[in-house]
Amino acid sequence: MTLPIDPLKILRFINGSLKSADDLVVVEEPMEIRLGFGSVNNRIEESIAITMRTPGNDFELAVGFLFSEGIIHDKNDILSVKYCFTSIPDQQDKNIVRVELTPGLEIDLSKQKRNFFAHSGCGICGKASIDAVYKTISRKALEIDVKLTIKTLLQIPIKTLKQQVNFNNTGGIHSASVFDSSGKMLVIKEDVGRHNAVDKIMGHFLLSNDPVLSDRILFLSGRMGFELVQKASMAHIPIVVSVGAPTSLSVKLGKELGMTLVGFTRENKFNIYCGEERIID
Amino acid sequence: MTLPIDPLKILRFINGSLKSADDLVVVEEPMEIRLGFGSVNNRIEESIAITMRTPGNDFELAVGFLFSEGIIHDKNDILSVKYCFTSIPDQQDKNIVRVELTPGLEIDLSKQKRNFFAHSGCGICGKASIDAVYKTISRKALEIDVKLTIKTLLQIPIKTLKQQVNFNNTGGIHSASVFDSSGKMLVIKEDVGRHNAVDKIMGHFLLSNDPVLSDRILFLSGRMGFELVQKASMAHIPIVVSVGAPTSLSVKLGKELGMTLVGFTRENKFNIYCGEERIID
Repeated sequence: MTLPIDPLKILRFINGSLKSADDLVVVEEPMEIRLGFGSVNNRIEESIAITMRTPGNDFELAVGFLFSEGIIHDKNDILSVKYCFTSIPDQQDKNIVRVELTPGLEIDLSKQKRNFFAHSGCGICGKASIDAVYKTISRKALEIDVKLTIKTLLQIPIKTLKQQVNFNNTGGIHSASVFDSSGKMLVIKEDVGRHNAVDKIMGHFLLSNDPVLSDRILFLSGRMGFELVQKASMAHIPIVVSVGAPTSLSVKLGKELGMTLVGFTRENKFNIYCGEERIID
Repeated sequence: MTLPIDPLKILRFINGSLKSADDLVVVEEPMEIRLGFGSVNNRIEESIAITMRTPGNDFELAVGFLFSEGIIHDKNDILSVKYCFTSIPDQQDKNIVRVELTPGLEIDLSKQKRNFFAHSGCGICGKASIDAVYKTISRKALEIDVKLTIKTLLQIPIKTLKQQVNFNNTGGIHSASVFDSSGKMLVIKEDVGRHNAVDKIMGHFLLSNDPVLSDRILFLSGRMGFELVQKASMAHIPIVVSVGAPTSLSVKLGKELGMTLVGFTRENKFNIYCGEERIID
Protein backbone atom coordinates (compact mmCIF):
# COMPACT_ATOMS: atom_id res chain seq x y z
CA MET A 1 0.00 0.00 0.00
CA THR A 2 1.24 3.48 -0.84
CA LEU A 3 1.23 5.62 2.26
CA PRO A 4 -0.76 8.84 1.87
CA ILE A 5 2.21 11.05 2.67
CA ASP A 6 4.11 13.55 0.55
CA PRO A 7 7.85 14.15 0.94
CA LEU A 8 9.05 17.75 0.81
CA LYS A 9 12.02 19.96 1.61
CA ILE A 10 11.61 22.27 4.57
CA LEU A 11 13.73 24.53 6.75
CA ARG A 12 13.86 23.27 10.32
CA PHE A 13 14.75 25.59 13.21
CA ILE A 14 16.34 23.54 15.95
CA ASN A 15 19.16 24.13 18.42
CA GLY A 16 19.23 27.79 17.51
CA SER A 17 19.64 27.57 13.74
CA LEU A 18 17.77 26.96 10.50
CA LYS A 19 18.75 23.85 8.55
CA SER A 20 17.40 22.34 5.35
CA ALA A 21 15.66 19.04 6.02
CA ASP A 22 13.51 16.36 4.45
CA ASP A 23 10.01 16.13 5.86
CA LEU A 24 6.75 14.28 5.29
CA VAL A 25 3.27 15.76 5.29
CA VAL A 26 -0.03 13.97 5.18
CA VAL A 27 -1.93 14.08 1.90
CA GLU A 28 -5.21 16.04 1.90
CA GLU A 29 -7.47 16.05 -1.16
CA PRO A 30 -11.15 16.76 -1.76
CA MET A 31 -13.45 13.80 -2.33
CA GLU A 32 -16.96 14.10 -3.67
CA ILE A 33 -19.63 11.56 -2.72
CA ARG A 34 -22.37 11.01 -5.28
CA LEU A 35 -25.49 9.01 -4.61
CA GLY A 36 -27.43 7.06 -7.25
CA PHE A 37 -30.95 6.08 -6.20
CA GLY A 38 -34.53 5.63 -7.40
CA SER A 39 -36.29 2.82 -9.23
CA VAL A 40 -34.71 0.64 -11.93
CA ASN A 41 -36.18 2.82 -14.66
CA ASN A 42 -35.82 6.20 -13.02
CA ARG A 43 -32.36 6.66 -11.56
CA ILE A 44 -31.51 9.92 -9.83
CA GLU A 45 -28.00 11.18 -9.16
CA GLU A 46 -27.20 13.68 -6.43
CA SER A 47 -23.84 15.01 -5.40
CA ILE A 48 -24.27 14.96 -1.66
CA ALA A 49 -20.98 15.89 -0.05
CA ILE A 50 -17.46 17.02 -0.63
CA THR A 51 -15.01 16.40 2.14
CA MET A 52 -11.31 17.10 2.52
CA ARG A 53 -9.87 13.70 3.20
CA THR A 54 -6.72 11.64 3.16
CA PRO A 55 -6.90 9.26 0.18
CA GLY A 56 -7.35 5.61 1.11
CA ASN A 57 -10.41 3.63 2.20
CA ASP A 58 -12.46 5.94 0.00
CA PHE A 59 -15.29 3.44 -0.47
CA GLU A 60 -15.51 2.88 3.28
CA LEU A 61 -15.60 6.65 3.75
CA ALA A 62 -18.45 7.12 1.26
CA VAL A 63 -20.49 4.25 2.63
CA GLY A 64 -19.75 5.13 6.27
CA PHE A 65 -20.85 8.71 5.65
CA LEU A 66 -24.19 7.52 4.27
CA PHE A 67 -24.58 5.20 7.25
CA SER A 68 -23.72 7.91 9.79
CA GLU A 69 -26.25 10.19 8.15
CA GLY A 70 -28.95 7.55 8.47
CA ILE A 71 -29.47 7.16 4.71
CA ILE A 72 -28.40 3.52 4.50
CA HIS A 73 -28.56 0.86 7.19
CA ASP A 74 -26.71 -2.22 5.95
CA LYS A 75 -24.84 -3.73 3.03
CA ASN A 76 -28.06 -4.80 1.30
CA ASP A 77 -28.87 -1.16 0.66
CA ILE A 78 -25.85 -0.88 -1.66
CA LEU A 79 -25.74 -2.05 -5.27
CA SER A 80 -22.21 -0.87 -6.02
CA VAL A 81 -19.51 1.58 -5.02
CA LYS A 82 -17.07 2.87 -7.62
CA TYR A 83 -14.89 5.76 -8.66
CA CYS A 84 -16.31 8.08 -11.30
CA PHE A 85 -13.66 8.64 -13.93
CA THR A 86 -13.73 11.88 -15.83
CA SER A 87 -13.03 12.03 -19.55
CA ILE A 88 -9.63 13.63 -19.03
CA PRO A 89 -7.59 11.35 -16.81
CA ASP A 90 -5.68 13.28 -14.20
CA GLN A 91 -4.89 13.03 -10.53
CA GLN A 92 -8.46 13.93 -9.62
CA ASP A 93 -9.62 10.66 -11.12
CA LYS A 94 -10.02 8.97 -7.78
CA ASN A 95 -11.62 11.89 -6.02
CA ILE A 96 -15.24 11.18 -6.93
CA VAL A 97 -16.98 8.14 -5.46
CA ARG A 98 -20.45 7.08 -6.56
CA VAL A 99 -22.56 4.87 -4.33
CA GLU A 100 -25.36 3.17 -6.22
CA LEU A 101 -28.22 2.20 -3.94
CA THR A 102 -30.31 -0.91 -4.45
CA PRO A 103 -33.09 -0.04 -6.94
CA GLY A 104 -36.36 0.70 -5.20
CA LEU A 105 -34.75 1.36 -1.83
CA GLU A 106 -36.72 4.06 -0.09
CA ILE A 107 -34.50 6.68 1.45
CA ASP A 108 -35.36 9.70 3.54
CA LEU A 109 -33.22 12.62 2.56
CA SER A 110 -35.54 15.14 4.21
CA LYS A 111 -33.56 15.22 7.43
CA GLN A 112 -30.58 16.29 5.43
CA LYS A 113 -32.61 18.73 3.36
CA ARG A 114 -30.35 20.76 1.19
CA ASN A 115 -28.75 23.86 2.47
CA PHE A 116 -26.69 26.48 0.77
CA PHE A 117 -23.32 25.93 2.29
CA ALA A 118 -21.66 23.69 4.59
CA HIS A 119 -19.28 24.91 7.12
CA SER A 120 -16.25 23.93 8.98
CA GLY A 121 -15.18 21.61 11.66
CA CYS A 122 -18.35 19.66 12.06
CA GLY A 123 -20.28 16.83 10.57
CA ILE A 124 -23.69 18.34 10.78
CA CYS A 125 -23.47 21.56 8.85
CA GLY A 126 -25.47 22.03 5.73
CA LYS A 127 -28.54 20.67 7.43
CA ALA A 128 -31.52 22.86 6.80
CA SER A 129 -32.40 23.68 10.38
CA ILE A 130 -31.04 23.40 13.86
CA ASP A 131 -33.75 20.83 14.63
CA ALA A 132 -32.30 18.62 11.91
CA VAL A 133 -29.04 18.55 13.82
CA TYR A 134 -30.65 16.51 16.54
CA LYS A 135 -32.58 14.16 14.30
CA THR A 136 -29.79 11.90 13.02
CA ILE A 137 -29.33 10.07 16.28
CA SER A 138 -30.12 6.46 17.02
CA ARG A 139 -32.19 6.26 20.18
CA LYS A 140 -32.13 2.48 20.42
CA ALA A 141 -31.29 1.38 23.97
CA LEU A 142 -27.63 0.53 24.27
CA GLU A 143 -26.14 -2.66 25.63
CA ILE A 144 -25.64 -2.25 29.38
CA ASP A 145 -23.68 -5.41 29.96
CA VAL A 146 -20.55 -4.40 28.08
CA LYS A 147 -17.84 -3.87 30.68
CA LEU A 148 -14.36 -2.47 30.22
CA THR A 149 -11.73 -2.89 32.90
CA ILE A 150 -9.56 0.07 33.80
CA LYS A 151 -6.47 -1.94 32.87
CA THR A 152 -7.83 -2.67 29.38
CA LEU A 153 -8.95 0.94 28.94
CA LEU A 154 -5.46 2.27 29.68
CA GLN A 155 -3.97 -0.07 27.06
CA ILE A 156 -6.19 1.27 24.26
CA PRO A 157 -4.27 4.49 23.49
CA ILE A 158 -0.94 2.64 23.64
CA LYS A 159 -2.11 -0.06 21.23
CA THR A 160 -3.55 2.54 18.89
CA LEU A 161 -0.42 4.69 18.78
CA LYS A 162 1.62 1.69 17.65
CA GLN A 163 -0.69 1.28 14.63
CA GLN A 164 -0.94 4.94 13.63
CA VAL A 165 1.50 4.56 10.74
CA ASN A 166 0.74 7.89 9.10
CA PHE A 167 0.61 9.82 12.35
CA ASN A 168 3.97 8.46 13.32
CA ASN A 169 5.34 9.72 9.98
CA THR A 170 3.69 13.13 9.89
CA GLY A 171 2.20 14.10 13.25
CA GLY A 172 -0.72 15.54 11.32
CA ILE A 173 -3.43 12.92 11.03
CA HIS A 174 -6.26 11.68 13.24
CA SER A 175 -7.24 8.10 13.88
CA ALA A 176 -10.31 6.22 14.99
CA SER A 177 -10.11 2.60 16.12
CA VAL A 178 -12.49 -0.03 17.39
CA PHE A 179 -11.75 -2.50 20.19
CA ASP A 180 -13.65 -5.34 21.76
CA SER A 181 -14.05 -5.41 25.51
CA SER A 182 -11.08 -7.74 25.93
CA GLY A 183 -8.88 -4.97 24.50
CA LYS A 184 -8.34 -6.51 21.06
CA MET A 185 -8.07 -3.92 18.29
CA LEU A 186 -10.44 -4.83 15.46
CA VAL A 187 -9.75 -2.01 13.03
CA ILE A 188 -8.01 1.37 12.79
CA LYS A 189 -8.46 4.11 10.17
CA GLU A 190 -6.52 7.33 9.77
CA ASP A 191 -7.60 10.57 8.13
CA VAL A 192 -6.75 14.25 8.15
CA GLY A 193 -10.38 14.80 9.24
CA ARG A 194 -11.38 13.16 12.49
CA HIS A 195 -14.97 12.70 11.27
CA ASN A 196 -13.71 10.97 8.16
CA ALA A 197 -11.70 8.53 10.27
CA VAL A 198 -14.91 7.55 12.09
CA ASP A 199 -16.88 7.32 8.83
CA LYS A 200 -14.17 5.01 7.42
CA ILE A 201 -14.62 2.81 10.48
CA MET A 202 -18.40 2.74 10.00
CA GLY A 203 -18.00 1.92 6.31
CA HIS A 204 -15.53 -0.86 7.10
CA PHE A 205 -18.01 -2.64 9.36
CA LEU A 206 -20.97 -2.02 7.09
CA LEU A 207 -19.14 -3.47 4.08
CA SER A 208 -18.23 -6.47 6.27
CA ASN A 209 -21.96 -6.89 6.90
CA ASP A 210 -21.54 -5.93 10.55
CA PRO A 211 -22.79 -2.38 11.07
CA VAL A 212 -24.08 -2.82 14.62
CA LEU A 213 -21.23 -2.47 17.09
CA SER A 214 -23.24 -2.81 20.27
CA ASP A 215 -20.46 -4.56 22.18
CA ARG A 216 -17.52 -2.50 20.94
CA ILE A 217 -15.45 0.47 22.07
CA LEU A 218 -14.67 3.41 19.77
CA PHE A 219 -11.36 5.16 20.44
CA LEU A 220 -10.68 8.68 19.10
CA SER A 221 -7.18 10.16 18.87
CA GLY A 222 -8.47 13.71 19.31
CA ARG A 223 -11.36 15.50 20.97
CA MET A 224 -14.87 14.09 21.34
CA GLY A 225 -17.31 16.58 19.81
CA PHE A 226 -21.05 16.18 19.39
CA GLU A 227 -20.92 14.77 15.86
CA LEU A 228 -18.52 12.00 16.79
CA VAL A 229 -20.78 10.85 19.61
CA GLN A 230 -23.71 11.10 17.17
CA LYS A 231 -21.87 8.87 14.67
CA ALA A 232 -21.12 6.33 17.43
CA SER A 233 -24.82 6.31 18.36
CA MET A 234 -25.75 5.33 14.80
CA ALA A 235 -23.72 2.11 15.18
CA HIS A 236 -25.07 1.53 18.73
CA ILE A 237 -21.57 1.77 20.17
CA PRO A 238 -21.93 1.99 23.96
CA ILE A 239 -18.43 3.21 24.93
CA VAL A 240 -16.44 6.07 23.40
CA VAL A 241 -12.94 6.81 24.66
CA SER A 242 -10.90 9.82 23.53
CA VAL A 243 -7.48 11.34 24.08
CA GLY A 244 -8.95 14.84 24.09
CA ALA A 245 -11.78 16.77 25.72
CA PRO A 246 -15.51 16.33 25.24
CA THR A 247 -17.86 19.30 24.81
CA SER A 248 -21.02 20.30 26.68
CA LEU A 249 -23.21 18.92 23.91
CA SER A 250 -21.37 15.62 23.53
CA VAL A 251 -21.76 14.92 27.25
CA LYS A 252 -25.43 15.91 27.12
CA LEU A 253 -26.05 13.54 24.21
CA GLY A 254 -24.04 10.73 25.82
CA LYS A 255 -26.09 11.02 29.02
CA GLU A 256 -29.37 11.07 27.11
CA LEU A 257 -28.46 7.95 25.17
CA GLY A 258 -26.98 6.04 28.11
CA MET A 259 -23.50 5.93 26.60
CA THR A 260 -20.19 5.75 28.45
CA LEU A 261 -17.90 8.66 27.55
CA VAL A 262 -14.27 8.70 28.69
CA GLY A 263 -11.98 11.64 27.85
CA PHE A 264 -8.44 12.91 28.45
CA THR A 265 -7.22 9.32 28.37
CA ARG A 266 -3.47 9.30 29.03
CA GLU A 267 -0.95 6.77 30.29
CA ASN A 268 -2.25 6.65 33.85
CA LYS A 269 -5.35 8.76 33.92
CA PHE A 270 -8.72 9.45 32.36
CA ASN A 271 -12.03 11.18 33.10
CA ILE A 272 -15.43 9.47 32.97
CA TYR A 273 -18.12 11.93 31.91
CA CYS A 274 -21.07 9.54 31.99
CA GLY A 275 -22.00 5.84 31.99
CA GLU A 276 -19.47 4.87 34.67
CA GLU A 277 -21.28 1.53 35.26
CA ARG A 278 -19.47 0.07 32.24
CA ILE A 279 -15.98 0.86 33.58
CA ILE A 280 -14.89 -1.69 36.19
CA ASP A 281 -11.81 -2.40 38.27
CA MET B 1 -18.45 38.27 30.12
CA THR B 2 -19.82 34.82 30.88
CA LEU B 3 -17.29 32.20 29.94
CA PRO B 4 -18.65 29.58 27.50
CA ILE B 5 -17.91 26.70 29.85
CA ASP B 6 -20.21 24.26 31.63
CA PRO B 7 -19.43 22.83 35.05
CA LEU B 8 -20.15 19.15 35.60
CA LYS B 9 -19.42 16.25 37.93
CA ILE B 10 -17.10 13.58 36.60
CA LEU B 11 -15.16 10.57 37.84
CA ARG B 12 -11.43 11.13 37.53
CA PHE B 13 -9.01 8.19 37.47
CA ILE B 14 -5.70 9.32 38.87
CA ASN B 15 -3.04 7.73 41.05
CA GLY B 16 -4.68 4.35 40.63
CA SER B 17 -8.22 5.16 41.76
CA LEU B 18 -11.48 6.73 40.63
CA LYS B 19 -12.58 9.87 42.48
CA SER B 20 -15.56 12.15 42.04
CA ALA B 21 -14.44 15.58 40.82
CA ASP B 22 -15.70 18.90 39.50
CA ASP B 23 -14.80 19.58 35.90
CA LEU B 24 -15.40 22.16 33.19
CA VAL B 25 -16.22 21.46 29.55
CA VAL B 26 -16.42 23.90 26.70
CA VAL B 27 -19.88 24.79 25.43
CA GLU B 28 -20.76 23.59 21.91
CA GLU B 29 -24.05 24.63 20.27
CA PRO B 30 -25.30 24.82 16.70
CA MET B 31 -25.56 28.25 15.10
CA GLU B 32 -27.42 28.95 11.88
CA ILE B 33 -26.35 31.78 9.58
CA ARG B 34 -29.08 33.36 7.49
CA LEU B 35 -28.46 35.82 4.71
CA GLY B 36 -30.88 38.57 3.65
CA PHE B 37 -30.16 40.06 0.22
CA GLY B 38 -31.73 41.48 -2.93
CA SER B 39 -33.14 44.88 -3.82
CA VAL B 40 -35.07 47.13 -1.43
CA ASN B 41 -38.38 45.83 -2.74
CA ASN B 42 -37.46 42.20 -3.28
CA ARG B 43 -35.66 40.78 -0.26
CA ILE B 44 -34.57 37.14 -0.34
CA GLU B 45 -33.67 35.07 2.71
CA GLU B 46 -31.43 32.01 2.55
CA SER B 47 -30.25 29.83 5.38
CA ILE B 48 -26.69 29.30 4.29
CA ALA B 49 -24.86 27.43 7.03
CA ILE B 50 -25.16 25.69 10.34
CA THR B 51 -22.01 25.28 12.32
CA MET B 52 -21.26 23.74 15.70
CA ARG B 53 -19.67 26.61 17.58
CA THR B 54 -18.83 27.91 21.01
CA PRO B 55 -21.24 30.78 21.78
CA GLY B 56 -19.64 34.21 21.83
CA ASN B 57 -18.61 36.58 19.02
CA ASP B 58 -21.51 35.19 17.03
CA PHE B 59 -21.83 38.27 14.83
CA GLU B 60 -18.11 38.18 14.04
CA LEU B 61 -18.48 34.48 13.19
CA ALA B 62 -21.39 35.08 10.80
CA VAL B 63 -19.74 38.03 9.09
CA GLY B 64 -16.31 36.38 8.98
CA PHE B 65 -17.81 33.27 7.40
CA LEU B 66 -19.37 35.38 4.64
CA PHE B 67 -16.06 37.15 4.13
CA SER B 68 -14.04 33.92 4.02
CA GLU B 69 -16.48 32.56 1.46
CA GLY B 70 -15.99 35.62 -0.74
CA ILE B 71 -19.62 36.77 -0.49
CA ILE B 72 -18.91 40.07 1.23
CA HIS B 73 -15.77 42.18 1.07
CA ASP B 74 -16.05 44.98 3.61
CA LYS B 75 -18.28 46.55 6.24
CA ASN B 76 -20.19 48.57 3.63
CA ASP B 77 -21.70 45.35 2.31
CA ILE B 78 -23.58 44.86 5.59
CA LEU B 79 -26.79 46.63 6.56
CA SER B 80 -27.27 44.88 9.90
CA VAL B 81 -26.43 41.77 11.90
CA LYS B 82 -28.88 40.49 14.49
CA TYR B 83 -30.18 37.43 16.28
CA CYS B 84 -33.44 35.97 14.98
CA PHE B 85 -35.71 35.36 17.91
CA THR B 86 -38.25 32.61 17.63
CA SER B 87 -41.78 33.01 18.94
CA ILE B 88 -41.15 30.66 21.84
CA PRO B 89 -38.22 31.97 23.83
CA ASP B 90 -35.83 29.23 24.84
CA GLN B 91 -32.13 28.65 24.99
CA GLN B 92 -31.92 28.39 21.22
CA ASP B 93 -32.84 32.05 20.96
CA LYS B 94 -29.32 33.17 20.26
CA ASN B 95 -28.47 30.37 17.87
CA ILE B 96 -29.72 31.98 14.66
CA VAL B 97 -27.89 35.01 13.26
CA ARG B 98 -29.23 36.95 10.30
CA VAL B 99 -26.90 39.12 8.24
CA GLU B 100 -28.77 41.68 6.17
CA LEU B 101 -26.77 42.83 3.17
CA THR B 102 -26.90 46.35 1.79
CA PRO B 103 -29.87 46.54 -0.61
CA GLY B 104 -28.83 46.21 -4.22
CA LEU B 105 -25.46 44.62 -3.38
CA GLU B 106 -24.62 42.13 -6.09
CA ILE B 107 -23.38 38.87 -4.69
CA ASP B 108 -22.12 35.79 -6.43
CA LEU B 109 -23.39 32.69 -4.71
CA SER B 110 -22.64 30.47 -7.70
CA LYS B 111 -19.25 29.36 -6.39
CA GLN B 112 -21.02 28.02 -3.33
CA LYS B 113 -23.80 26.48 -5.36
CA ARG B 114 -26.03 24.45 -3.16
CA ASN B 115 -25.20 20.90 -2.36
CA PHE B 116 -27.08 18.24 -0.54
CA PHE B 117 -25.04 17.81 2.56
CA ALA B 118 -22.14 19.21 4.19
CA HIS B 119 -19.57 17.09 5.78
CA SER B 120 -17.15 17.09 8.55
CA GLY B 121 -13.94 18.63 9.55
CA CYS B 122 -13.56 21.08 6.75
CA GLY B 123 -14.67 24.48 5.63
CA ILE B 124 -15.28 23.70 2.03
CA CYS B 125 -17.79 20.92 2.03
CA GLY B 126 -21.17 21.43 0.56
CA LYS B 127 -19.68 23.06 -2.46
CA ALA B 128 -21.17 21.70 -5.63
CA SER B 129 -18.01 20.49 -7.28
CA ILE B 130 -14.39 19.84 -6.56
CA ASP B 131 -13.51 22.76 -8.84
CA ALA B 132 -15.47 25.06 -6.56
CA VAL B 133 -13.14 24.10 -3.73
CA TYR B 134 -10.30 25.92 -5.43
CA LYS B 135 -12.26 28.99 -6.48
CA THR B 136 -12.63 30.79 -3.14
CA ILE B 137 -9.02 31.87 -2.96
CA SER B 138 -7.67 35.38 -3.21
CA ARG B 139 -4.84 35.45 -5.72
CA LYS B 140 -3.81 39.04 -5.03
CA ALA B 141 -0.02 39.30 -4.68
CA LEU B 142 0.96 39.26 -1.03
CA GLU B 143 3.16 41.77 0.73
CA ILE B 144 6.78 40.59 0.46
CA ASP B 145 8.30 43.12 2.82
CA VAL B 146 6.71 41.81 6.01
CA LYS B 147 9.48 40.25 8.06
CA LEU B 148 9.22 38.25 11.25
CA THR B 149 12.27 37.62 13.39
CA ILE B 150 12.84 34.16 14.80
CA LYS B 151 12.80 35.60 18.31
CA THR B 152 9.38 37.22 17.76
CA LEU B 153 8.04 34.06 16.11
CA LEU B 154 8.96 31.91 19.10
CA GLN B 155 7.13 34.31 21.44
CA ILE B 156 3.83 34.00 19.56
CA PRO B 157 2.68 30.63 20.99
CA ILE B 158 3.68 31.68 24.50
CA LYS B 159 1.76 34.97 24.28
CA THR B 160 -1.27 33.18 22.85
CA LEU B 161 -1.37 30.48 25.51
CA LYS B 162 -1.55 33.14 28.23
CA GLN B 163 -4.71 34.57 26.61
CA GLN B 164 -6.48 31.26 25.90
CA VAL B 165 -8.85 31.64 28.84
CA ASN B 166 -11.24 28.89 27.81
CA PHE B 167 -8.52 26.47 26.75
CA ASN B 168 -6.82 26.89 30.08
CA ASN B 169 -10.11 25.99 31.79
CA THR B 170 -11.17 23.09 29.60
CA GLY B 171 -8.32 21.87 27.37
CA GLY B 172 -10.91 21.45 24.64
CA ILE B 173 -11.02 24.58 22.53
CA HIS B 174 -9.02 25.97 19.62
CA SER B 175 -7.80 29.50 19.18
CA ALA B 176 -6.76 31.77 16.35
CA SER B 177 -4.88 34.99 16.98
CA VAL B 178 -3.43 37.81 14.92
CA PHE B 179 -0.10 39.52 15.58
CA ASP B 180 1.74 42.39 13.97
CA SER B 181 5.34 41.86 12.91
CA SER B 182 6.65 43.40 16.13
CA GLY B 183 4.99 40.52 18.01
CA LYS B 184 2.08 42.51 19.43
CA MET B 185 -1.12 40.46 19.73
CA LEU B 186 -4.00 42.34 18.12
CA VAL B 187 -6.85 39.91 18.73
CA ILE B 188 -7.55 36.34 19.84
CA LYS B 189 -10.72 34.26 19.39
CA GLU B 190 -11.51 30.82 20.77
CA ASP B 191 -13.93 28.24 19.43
CA VAL B 192 -14.57 24.51 19.60
CA GLY B 193 -14.14 24.56 15.79
CA ARG B 194 -10.79 25.77 14.53
CA HIS B 195 -12.38 27.18 11.37
CA ASN B 196 -14.86 29.13 13.44
CA ALA B 197 -12.02 30.68 15.44
CA VAL B 198 -10.51 31.98 12.18
CA ASP B 199 -13.88 33.21 10.92
CA LYS B 200 -14.39 35.09 14.20
CA ILE B 201 -11.02 36.75 13.61
CA MET B 202 -12.00 37.71 10.05
CA GLY B 203 -15.34 39.08 11.26
CA HIS B 204 -13.64 41.10 13.99
CA PHE B 205 -11.42 42.91 11.50
CA LEU B 206 -14.18 43.34 8.95
CA LEU B 207 -16.53 44.91 11.51
CA SER B 208 -13.64 47.20 12.53
CA ASN B 209 -13.48 48.28 8.88
CA ASP B 210 -10.08 46.63 8.46
CA PRO B 211 -10.52 43.37 6.54
CA VAL B 212 -7.15 43.45 4.72
CA LEU B 213 -4.44 42.06 6.97
CA SER B 214 -1.58 42.25 4.51
CA ASP B 215 1.04 42.98 7.17
CA ARG B 216 -0.20 40.60 9.87
CA ILE B 217 0.56 37.12 11.14
CA LEU B 218 -2.17 34.53 11.78
CA PHE B 219 -1.43 32.03 14.54
CA LEU B 220 -3.36 28.75 14.81
CA SER B 221 -3.42 26.62 17.97
CA GLY B 222 -3.90 23.39 16.00
CA ARG B 223 -3.08 22.02 12.60
CA MET B 224 -2.93 24.03 9.38
CA GLY B 225 -5.28 22.44 6.86
CA PHE B 226 -6.12 23.69 3.38
CA GLU B 227 -9.23 25.61 4.38
CA LEU B 228 -7.42 27.62 7.05
CA VAL B 229 -4.76 28.70 4.57
CA GLN B 230 -7.59 29.52 2.13
CA LYS B 231 -9.27 31.72 4.74
CA ALA B 232 -5.96 33.52 5.43
CA SER B 233 -5.58 34.15 1.69
CA MET B 234 -8.96 35.93 1.61
CA ALA B 235 -7.61 38.53 4.07
CA HIS B 236 -4.24 38.74 2.24
CA ILE B 237 -2.41 37.51 5.32
CA PRO B 238 1.17 36.69 4.26
CA ILE B 239 2.34 34.61 7.25
CA VAL B 240 0.53 31.70 8.93
CA VAL B 241 2.10 30.03 11.95
CA SER B 242 0.65 26.91 13.59
CA VAL B 243 1.34 24.63 16.52
CA GLY B 244 0.41 21.56 14.47
CA ALA B 245 1.19 20.02 11.10
CA PRO B 246 0.29 21.32 7.64
CA THR B 247 -1.09 19.05 4.93
CA SER B 248 0.06 18.42 1.37
CA LEU B 249 -2.64 20.70 -0.01
CA SER B 250 -2.06 23.56 2.43
CA VAL B 251 1.64 23.64 1.50
CA LYS B 252 0.78 23.48 -2.21
CA LEU B 253 -1.63 26.41 -1.85
CA GLY B 254 0.81 28.41 0.31
CA LYS B 255 3.55 28.00 -2.29
CA GLU B 256 1.24 28.98 -5.15
CA LEU B 257 0.15 32.15 -3.36
CA GLY B 258 3.60 33.14 -2.10
CA MET B 259 2.66 32.76 1.56
CA THR B 260 4.96 31.91 4.45
CA LEU B 261 3.80 28.79 6.31
CA VAL B 262 5.40 27.77 9.61
CA GLY B 263 4.29 24.61 11.44
CA PHE B 264 5.12 22.55 14.52
CA THR B 265 5.97 25.75 16.38
CA ARG B 266 7.13 24.85 19.89
CA GLU B 267 9.23 26.51 22.53
CA ASN B 268 12.51 26.28 20.66
CA LYS B 269 11.70 24.90 17.26
CA PHE B 270 9.57 25.23 14.17
CA ASN B 271 9.46 24.12 10.53
CA ILE B 272 9.23 26.52 7.57
CA TYR B 273 7.30 24.92 4.72
CA CYS B 274 7.45 27.83 2.28
CA GLY B 275 8.11 31.58 2.05
CA GLU B 276 11.24 31.49 4.18
CA GLU B 277 12.29 34.97 2.94
CA ARG B 278 9.93 36.56 5.48
CA ILE B 279 11.56 34.81 8.47
CA ILE B 280 14.78 36.55 9.52
CA ASP B 281 17.37 36.21 12.25
